[in-house]
Amino acid sequence: SKFEYVKKFEHSNPLLPSTYMVVRIDGRGFTNFTNLHNFEKPNDIRGLQLMNKCAKEVMKSFTEIIIAYGDSDEYSFAFKKSANVFNRREDKILSCVLSLFSTSYVFFWSKYFGDTNTGGQKLLKVPSFDARIVLYPSLEDLQNYLSWRQVDCHINNQYNTCFWTIVQKGGLSTEQAQKRLKGTLTKDKNEILFSEFGINYNTIDEIFKRGSIWIRMISKKEMKQQKSRKPQEIKEQIQQRNQSEQINLEEEKKNGDSDVQDLKGDIIDMSLDVMTSALKISKKELLLVHDDLVEKPAFYEKYELIKKLK
Amino acid sequence: SKFEYVKKFEHSNPLLPSTYMVVRIDGRGFTNFTNLHNFEKPNDIRGLQLMNKCAKEVMKSFTEIIIAYGDSDEYSFAFKKSANVFNRREDKILSCVLSLFSTSYVFFWSKYFGDTNTGGQKLLKVPSFDARIVLYPSLEDLQNYLSWRQVDCHINNQYNTCFWTIVQKGGLSTEQAQKRLKGTLTKDKNEILFSEFGINYNTIDEIFKRGSIWIRMISKKEMKQQKSRKPQEIKEQIQQRNQSEQINLEEEKKNGDSDVQDLKGDIIDMSLDVMTSALKISKKELLLVHDDLVEKPAFYEKYELIKKLK
Amino acid sequence: SKFEYVKKFEHSNPLLPSTYMVVRIDGRGFTNFTNLHNFEKPNDIRGLQLMNKCAKEVMKSFTEIIIAYGDSDEYSFAFKKSANVFNRREDKILSCVLSLFSTSYVFFWSKYFGDTNTGGQKLLKVPSFDARIVLYPSLEDLQNYLSWRQVDCHINNQYNTCFWTIVQKGGLSTEQAQKRLKGTLTKDKNEILFSEFGINYNTIDEIFKRGSIWIRMISKKEMKQQKSRKPQEIKEQIQQRNQSEQINLEEEKKNGDSDVQDLKGDIIDMSLDVMTSALKISKKELLLVHDDLVEKPAFYEKYELIKKLK
Amino acid sequence: SKFEYVKKFEHSNPLLPSTYMVVRIDGRGFTNFTNLHNFEKPNDIRGLQLMNKCAKEVMKSFTEIIIAYGDSDEYSFAFKKSANVFNRREDKILSCVLSLFSTSYVFFWSKYFGDTNTGGQKLLKVPSFDARIVLYPSLEDLQNYLSWRQVDCHINNQYNTCFWTIVQKGGLSTEQAQKRLKGTLTKDKNEILFSEFGINYNTIDEIFKRGSIWIRMISKKEMKQQKSRKPQEIKEQIQQRNQSEQINLEEEKKNGDSDVQDLKGDIIDMSLDVMTSALKISKKELLLVHDDLVEKPAFYEKYELIKKLK
Ligand SMILES: Nc1nc2c(ncn2[C@H]2C[C@H](O)[C@@H](COP(=O)(O)OP(=O)(O)OP(=O)(O)O)O2)c(=O)[nH]1
Ligand SMILES: Nc1nc2c(ncn2[C@H]2C[C@H](O)[C@@H](COP(=O)(O)OP(=O)(O)OP(=O)(O)O)O2)c(=O)[nH]1
Ligand SMILES: Nc1nc2c(ncn2[C@H]2C[C@H](O)[C@@H](COP(=O)(O)OP(=O)(O)OP(=O)(O)O)O2)c(=O)[nH]1
Ligand SMILES: Nc1nc2c(ncn2[C@H]2C[C@H](O)[C@@H](COP(=O)(O)OP(=O)(O)OP(=O)(O)O)O2)c(=O)[nH]1
Ligand SMILES: O=P(O)(O)OP(=O)(O)OP(=O)(O)O
Ligand SMILES: O=P(O)(O)OP(=O)(O)OP(=O)(O)O
Ligand SMILES: O=P(O)(O)OP(=O)(O)OP(=O)(O)O
Ligand SMILES: O=P(O)(O)OP(=O)(O)OP(=O)(O)O
Ligand SMILES: [Mg+2]
Ligand SMILES: [Mg+2]
Ligand SMILES: [Mg+2]
Ligand SMILES: [Mg+2]
Ligand SMILES: [Mg+2]
Ligand SMILES: [Mg+2]
Ligand SMILES: [Mg+2]
Ligand SMILES: [Mg+2]
Ligand SMILES: [Mg+2]
Ligand SMILES: [Mg+2]
Ligand SMILES: [Mg+2]
Ligand SMILES: [Mg+2]
Repeated sequence: SKFEYVKKFEHSNPLLPSTYMVVRIDGRGFTNFTNLHNFEKPNDIRGLQLMNKCAKEVMKSFTEIIIAYGDSDEYSFAFKKSANVFNRREDKILSCVLSLFSTSYVFFWSKYFGDTNTGGQKLLKVPSFDARIVLYPSLEDLQNYLSWRQVDCHINNQYNTCFWTIVQKGGLSTEQAQKRLKGTLTKDKNEILFSEFGINYNTIDEIFKRGSIWIRMISKKEMKQQKSRKPQEIKEQIQQRNQSEQINLEEEKKNGDSDVQDLKGDIIDMSLDVMTSALKISKKELLLVHDDLVEKPAFYEKYELIKKLK
Repeated sequence: SKFEYVKKFEHSNPLLPSTYMVVRIDGRGFTNFTNLHNFEKPNDIRGLQLMNKCAKEVMKSFTEIIIAYGDSDEYSFAFKKSANVFNRREDKILSCVLSLFSTSYVFFWSKYFGDTNTGGQKLLKVPSFDARIVLYPSLEDLQNYLSWRQVDCHINNQYNTCFWTIVQKGGLSTEQAQKRLKGTLTKDKNEILFSEFGINYNTIDEIFKRGSIWIRMISKKEMKQQKSRKPQEIKEQIQQRNQSEQINLEEEKKNGDSDVQDLKGDIIDMSLDVMTSALKISKKELLLVHDDLVEKPAFYEKYELIKKLK
Repeated sequence: SKFEYVKKFEHSNPLLPSTYMVVRIDGRGFTNFTNLHNFEKPNDIRGLQLMNKCAKEVMKSFTEIIIAYGDSDEYSFAFKKSANVFNRREDKILSCVLSLFSTSYVFFWSKYFGDTNTGGQKLLKVPSFDARIVLYPSLEDLQNYLSWRQVDCHINNQYNTCFWTIVQKGGLSTEQAQKRLKGTLTKDKNEILFSEFGINYNTIDEIFKRGSIWIRMISKKEMKQQKSRKPQEIKEQIQQRNQSEQINLEEEKKNGDSDVQDLKGDIIDMSLDVMTSALKISKKELLLVHDDLVEKPAFYEKYELIKKLK
Repeated sequence: SKFEYVKKFEHSNPLLPSTYMVVRIDGRGFTNFTNLHNFEKPNDIRGLQLMNKCAKEVMKSFTEIIIAYGDSDEYSFAFKKSANVFNRREDKILSCVLSLFSTSYVFFWSKYFGDTNTGGQKLLKVPSFDARIVLYPSLEDLQNYLSWRQVDCHINNQYNTCFWTIVQKGGLSTEQAQKRLKGTLTKDKNEILFSEFGINYNTIDEIFKRGSIWIRMISKKEMKQQKSRKPQEIKEQIQQRNQSEQINLEEEKKNGDSDVQDLKGDIIDMSLDVMTSALKISKKELLLVHDDLVEKPAFYEKYELIKKLK
């Protein structure tokens, strides 16, 4: 039609090749949203599990994502350098990742928060998320990005844990608590927690202290095929991981996680630090390995979830 | 922390001032999604009403949107030229509009599709949407954009109506139907519908033929305040519209639409053509008026839905 | 070759259609450059004429530029809204306009500054210019852009004229002069000039006070062809302009300007204010007329220079 | 002033940090320009030397450029990854590099082409250049970029040498020559040159076959300061290079190159291949070394030119 010329006003923004594309999603106004929905303070495991579930849906759908990291109301997804999803069109990638995450949040809400019939927490208001894409040219920058988010998680959690403890257990008002914590250092806060409330910060769940991570792993089938070309050491580390995986899968089946049956393979959920120490490889190696391993996305038809290692 | 430098890799993309920013959202793979969920062919009023509901949520949340147009699995939202939402940052606007639309789609699904208890259509799979932003420098271009989408709606609907009629009522296979319609013109298709199936295309619901439109209108209170400065003719046209609004509101209340009580004011839903003929003003005037009227978004605290005029 | 993949890292940035593209060029470090080359203070007519010459070269080469405005060490070029030069690729437009302007500056230097043999000012150091492109969606914004630059010219010239007068004629040091003028208003500065040095600011050359402007005009041939469709009033105004043009052309020939012979037609050089009052049309009309007239660039094979009207 | 709002329409485009920014400049319509100015075919050493001179001016002015490569009517400039020139603003970098190159071309024209008094080639028309910026995230990509341009140089030169030989020495028309060479491979063309005209392609000047390269080198003073921290091997390689440098500098002085006196230090001009073999280090090492060495641009006050090694 004679109106079609308006299509020419569209502009596509192809992102620079050979860079890590990171999509970061963050809940809009989740200070209010978490209050309205009675999230436990400072951390509600249901909320984090729901976020993790959404992240997994995204990783299942976008097979060039190699790693995802989340905490609080945010999640970051890093595509491998060679990713060619939507020809690297910024708006397509941003919108499709974000939209799937968003709809998953509502869709799976009752799986984690229950519903009113069963005494659960009803979803009262439509949540929403913002999103952005950031490019990182080198693996080192990507690692520092992930560390940046993890340090942020740590600092916030340290503060919030202390804050809500002195409010909920110490009986202070929120204003008093704020005043009390003003200017305190990490060790001061740990000291307050320990001496006044008998809480050892180090024993708090890893998922609260360090956030969650999904890493795309090689499937067992693929592993066999790669055997010939991978250095022995790395192979063993991954085999070792696969054993613990087995165990966790068994656990999950017992716990009745309905996802487990049809999931096999290559997403793994644990904190970055835990993982690297468990696997006894450096973060750098870890990512390098995976960037390499996912070169053939054709093999990634199946996915596997394991609980965080403790 | 020493990792904070990674924040510098973020780039903001402020959109050119004084242009109409249009966000277009489109369902990903809705050919499959609508099949899986047994949407009526070629049009399922439930799906369209759900889309309209989502669009309304978006307009309620983003008060600088002046007009929204939707059909099939897509919706377009046009911000007024002077809009300053998120300082016109492209990623923020794109992501927040899209995310709210997406979560609303899942949240309100059962309102329109019912649930399994009541024999409704359960949501079986997370839907998702892509989105883009297009800038239009002039009102004329924006109008042509809307016309482009409406012509597209019309052409698709004409084809689909004819196609599914000869399949469902005429007993042809989809391949046969495709063959039959190859190369036919609009009048040929209308002829087939009429002579073979007794269907007068013109009598088909406006919402299917022309899509849906939301326009931000002036509230009655604002109207009074503007009386002194608006030309008499336009004032009367809008008063006339406000009367039919009243009636529709009554209808809605009877139909038990729970939104109606707390909605007053300034979003109106009708086809662009119908509206302009009803109001006896040109499309150009219509939009001009409204771009002007919404200069003071402070007055737009309340919203009002009326059904499409017939 | 196997290296060709690197071409994919190039990105093209097509500028939004239907907007006025403005290229602004500004001399780099011209504070030093003008000192080194003994420019007269505050204005050196040779420098301005050289800049004007460069601007004309640009307008001759880029026929979709409708207006150019310059003062001090800067020049702005506005392309018409419908311009399609280099498919509106930002880097191509920016670089080609800038490069031609830059090389012209060196090439024509001695035409205006003479050479050492004839006691002129030798070019001692390579000058250079920065450049940027700004988009304006409406004519009104473009006009305000031009006004912004012209007001800037005016303010700077007012200050500089006063400053250098009290230094050169009043014998103050530059520090003393700066101090003296600190906090003074326009009328204070005019008063100083008049009462202390007998200089009436209003009588200073228009080119110093208001800058220079090039406007692409309709050729006489084109004029005839347009007669039928242009409103009578505008036609007369342009005819009237063409008469003064004639006169100026004669003058130029006498002055031996070698360009004149082969120039016929459609670039005109005068201050915007002077022009609009001479033509007795508003700035808005002026630009509208020209944007319209240049719709058929095919007619613009020939160019015509006239001196600034006084 | 009330017009200042138009400044808000400017957008800055900061380029992604930690990537190599490459500015490529290319002569506009140099097919005509070189014909008009009677350039020798296929290569005119005067033109190449002029281009090299312009490139050197650019490198002197922009101290974060680590390498420049040129052939025919084009030149590429690569900034180091950490470059922070103009806060990495795209338009500023593009325009300032391009403008300086462009004005240098005209300014230094007569130095290489002589002037009419001395039987040289007068500059008859203003030349101009286009320019673009391309980002490369890794050193490998940057190297492949340089190789891409060098291979292009090689292929064009091979073809042009053969083409103009059979025209100029073989007496064919340009049409006949084109026909003759259609479909021939590299070795066919070398064979024609050798068997028919006794020309051994390998003996043709390196500058024609491989283009020119400028590399920013460490100064001798800086070298001493770095001695303690650089591995012995690299130090020796660079010392060895510095000896040949010395020789060339002597040669240059004899040849009366007036630049030599005031040049000391850190730009070196040779073909990439020649350099790496001379220095007995890989291209990768070469660039790595230099990216590292130029971390402290404060030391680069002086520059040094040596002729291409043969
Ligand atoms: N009680 C509770 N609050 C949480 C939990 N996770 C996140 N939140 C809250 C704490 C913060 O107020 C908020 C996340 O901080 P943000 O900086 O993202 O702020 P917010 O989302 O309110 O604003 P934004 O729209 O992102 O600028 O969400 C949780 O598990 N429990
Ligand atoms: N049966 C039925 N189908 C509908 C209805 N509304 C939309 N659809 C289907 C028809 C089209 O196949 C599809 C919309 O076309 P699109 O061009 O957006 O294709 P699709 O979403 O499959 O792919 P995409 O991801 O957008 O490229 O949705 C409806 O009310 N009823
Ligand atoms: N004496 C004299 N100076 C002039 C004339 N035209 C321009 N200039 C000088 C006055 C200003 O110092 C300078 C233009 O101001 P700018 O703001 O462009 O500064 P400049 O070019 O030094 O720095 P920039 O690289 O543009 O940031 O050029 C002239 O005709 N005569
Ligand atoms: N005779 C001669 N010609 C040369 C020399 N260096 C470059 N040229 C010519 C050969 C090519 O026709 C032209 C460079 O090719 P380009 O692809 O850049 O084409 P051109 O500049 O004509 O068009 P463009 O504006 O860049 O698209 O310059 C030279 O040393 N001698
Ligand atoms: O999706 P299409 O094919 O209707 O057309 P488009 O939306 O312009 O294409 P894309 O979704 O790839 O931007
Ligand atoms: O949202 P904040 O304040 O944590 O910081 P940000 O996400 O960088 O800011 P914005 O959401 O405005 O991009
Ligand atoms: O100019 P060409 O044809 O050698 O190739 P290009 O430089 O990539 O094309 P353009 O100048 O149009 O960017
Ligand atoms: O150069 P200035 O300071 O007059 O102002 P600007 O041109 O807007 O600044 P920049 O040259 O840094 O874009
Ligand atoms: Mg934020
Ligand atoms: Mg948030
Ligand atoms: Mg957050
Ligand atoms: Mg699409
Ligand atoms: Mg779709
Ligand atoms: Mg669609
Ligand atoms: Mg400036
Ligand atoms: Mg300047
Ligand atoms: Mg200036
Ligand atoms: Mg080119
Ligand atoms: Mg060229
Ligand atoms: Mg070239």
